[in-house]
Amino acid sequence: MRELLGASLRAERVSQGRTLREVSSGARVSLGYLSEVERGQKEASSELLAAICSALEVPMSSVLSTVSNEMAVQELAQHKAVTPLRVRKPVAQAAA
Amino acid sequence: MRELLGASLRAERVSQGRTLREVSSGARVSLGYLSEVERGQKEASSELLAAICSALEVPMSSVLSTVSNEMAVQELAQHKAVTPLRVRKPVAQAAA
Repeated sequence: MRELLGASLRAERVSQGRTLREVSSGARVSLGYLSEVERGQKEASSELLAAICSALEVPMSSVLSTVSNEMAVQELAQHKAVTPLRVRKPVAQAAA
Repeated sequence: MRELLGASLRAERVSQGRTLREVSSGARVSLGYLSEVERGQKEASSELLAAICSALEVPMSSVLSTVSNEMAVQELAQHKAVTPLRVRKPVAQAAA
């Protein structure tokens, strides 16, 4: 989640053509800390996340929605990677 | 966000008829800590959130989606509370 959240914040900032310096200043957080959050290396508190979203002028719900969707894709991929045998077995048993 | 996330985790646990003790044991976190997370008093790290979701057997994407939706409702309510004058002004100007 930390990585997806950071990537989502970075993608939003880059799409706006804004620098780490601009957004960190707007969110009143150090440039290094924002950079670590974006790279998924530091956990952003709820308050910090709200400040970053505010500086980016995006609703937090929108960022969370993006993260949720990307996580669902990952979960599906993991599910597919783990479960093909479990999915196929009942079919084979039904055919036998 | 912390409050909405905690409330969402608590609602899921209660809907399953499970106790704080059961879920905290499954997530390998102290009962007191889980309780504080549910009440929005402690920030859950990404790893802890993953462990709680795993103990509850719900995808983290689903929990985040719920939080995102509830946050969108809150944002809309705040927006409505702040913006009626800004919305009405252009209409009055257009009529003048």
